[in-house]
Amino acid sequence: MRVAVDAMGGDNAPAVEVEGAVAAAREFGIAVTLVGDELRLRQCLATYPTAGLDIDIHHASEVVGMHDSASDAVRRKRNSSVRLAFELVSEGKACAAVSAGNSGATMAAGMFVLKRISGIERPAIAQVFPTLQGKTLVLDVGGNVDCKPTHLAQFAIMGQVYAKYAMGIDNPRIGLLSNGEEDSKGNDLTRETNAILRQTSLNYAGYVEGRDIFKGTVEVVVCDGFVGNVVLKLSEGLAEATGTMLKREIMGDMIAKMGYLFMRGAFNRFKKTVDYAEYGGAPLIGINGVGMICHGGSNAKAIKNAIRFAHEYATSGVTQRIAETLSENYGALFLRSGNGAPTVSS
Amino acid sequence: MRVAVDAMGGDNAPAVEVEGAVAAAREFGIAVTLVGDELRLRQCLATYPTAGLDIDIHHASEVVGMHDSASDAVRRKRNSSVRLAFELVSEGKACAAVSAGNSGATMAAGMFVLKRISGIERPAIAQVFPTLQGKTLVLDVGGNVDCKPTHLAQFAIMGQVYAKYAMGIDNPRIGLLSNGEEDSKGNDLTRETNAILRQTSLNYAGYVEGRDIFKGTVEVVVCDGFVGNVVLKLSEGLAEATGTMLKREIMGDMIAKMGYLFMRGAFNRFKKTVDYAEYGGAPLIGINGVGMICHGGSNAKAIKNAIRFAHEYATSGVTQRIAETLSENYGALFLRSGNGAPTVSS
Repeated sequence: MRVAVDAMGGDNAPAVEVEGAVAAAREFGIAVTLVGDELRLRQCLATYPTAGLDIDIHHASEVVGMHDSASDAVRRKRNSSVRLAFELVSEGKACAAVSAGNSGATMAAGMFVLKRISGIERPAIAQVFPTLQGKTLVLDVGGNVDCKPTHLAQFAIMGQVYAKYAMGIDNPRIGLLSNGEEDSKGNDLTRETNAILRQTSLNYAGYVEGRDIFKGTVEVVVCDGFVGNVVLKLSEGLAEATGTMLKREIMGDMIAKMGYLFMRGAFNRFKKTVDYAEYGGAPLIGINGVGMICHGGSNAKAIKNAIRFAHEYATSGVTQRIAETLSENYGALFLRSGNGAPTVSS
Repeated sequence: MRVAVDAMGGDNAPAVEVEGAVAAAREFGIAVTLVGDELRLRQCLATYPTAGLDIDIHHASEVVGMHDSASDAVRRKRNSSVRLAFELVSEGKACAAVSAGNSGATMAAGMFVLKRISGIERPAIAQVFPTLQGKTLVLDVGGNVDCKPTHLAQFAIMGQVYAKYAMGIDNPRIGLLSNGEEDSKGNDLTRETNAILRQTSLNYAGYVEGRDIFKGTVEVVVCDGFVGNVVLKLSEGLAEATGTMLKREIMGDMIAKMGYLFMRGAFNRFKKTVDYAEYGGAPLIGINGVGMICHGGSNAKAIKNAIRFAHEYATSGVTQRIAETLSENYGALFLRSGNGAPTVSS
């Protein structure tokens, strides 16, 4: 199956999208449809040797900008590249849509075109983090800033299924991000969510703290999209700052500079472990289909890996599994009582 | 003026508290009162040469444990070391209280004994972070998990005064932590706070993102205590994990290991930049006096630096400045309309 790439969305579009698509087609044999301005994409694609690669172009006359209002843009810009990429998935012409554009608009387009999985109120953006133990999935990292306890409980279920079937982790442990481990900690939102999750059959480990993400204490960390976005950007920022501070110390010291030459290999392997481009993108989980949200500043390597990642996700059957898990195990979990408080009745 | 140290609170109490107090008295000439079990403290202190150092002991028969409910413990345990440390400040026998114990209890004791500054609804725990530009103060990092917009606006004012008078930063820039820079981003809490802060005369830079903390884009970052606590612990965890991952790469590689020998000096200087023990503790801002909250796992170096830091804070006159700033410039800022929404009328 083909992967549809919104080729116009990112900060460096369409150059990195085209380069990434060519690399994915060549290295992984994945068929790619580039969605965007046909003329520009054709010119850009012509600069690469593409004989034998299955890459085609689907014309889109509009683009959603980084500052466009997400939902507005998706409704009004019917011919935008991000919306048409999801239309291809909806029509069965692609198995996944990938975009480095306005992430709010990508989420809105995914929801609008593919609709939510029955039982999921809010799709979430999930991000894989490297940890001391392996990998941990954090969701939501920016889709939903104001969440209700039921939303977070649904994120937990989606995270469990994704970790199991797309990441191959058997019986993944789930933690709820909080300001302390004891049940007495947390804010209003996490305390209600904690009570709901304790009543489910999920492998729920209770509250985890910020430090647990990189320790890899659990394989799935659940939080609202505001907190998750701070986590994501803080991690990127701290990793960058650490590199810069270390470099300053090394460069101000002749002997250390010599040492660095010996250590370059180790540094580069380390950099690869923490480089977001290796992970490519963050899946949008909870819609009827596969969407992959990439960093606005993605380079071609990130796009290439996101295409591979999207293709794997689409073949993992996670979407179907989430729907099944919800209807089998949590059918009556998210009924609401009259005052809007969540009740558990499964 | 003396600094009162709750010698019974931390994970390694009273050993590190006593060692830290001795070091602070010797290196900085600060007079210290150790508050806690007199017999144990006397025994512990006897293992150090203390001739010529001004260290005394104030007996406290009770201890607040890490799992005690904060406010309960402070009210019921009238003779707890943390409460008595603040009583010494209240009686004018010490200029500051330092504790590595239960941080909720330390905050509760500070509020209960010293009371809040008039106009401040919630004191905040502030933490200094090292950045690429210097230092940034983040508040609140754990005092208040469910905040209202007026609380965050008060944190901004306290942060400005602290950064100016205790950190010596002229006209500090203030940012509100959010999930994006545009005013359209944020959650309900930050959007209301953003509107309030835009109407003040503070040097307010608007929303900042997680990555801006370590970039040092602003000198004061305001957030609620839930988000701030995640930021604090994530940063500690990521710094630790980064070190461990890098070490693994180096140790698996003979040539890199050799290189490391040359780079040790640079690594150690870098470690010192990001080591929380160098900063010692986080000031509790917004009470009528000085409280310093230390990491539960503090070592003696952290306690020593917290004592110095507390002493500097006490002599900076920040508490008085906050009260003045509030009454001079923001007297009518935080009136509330009937429905509880904040209104600005200054």
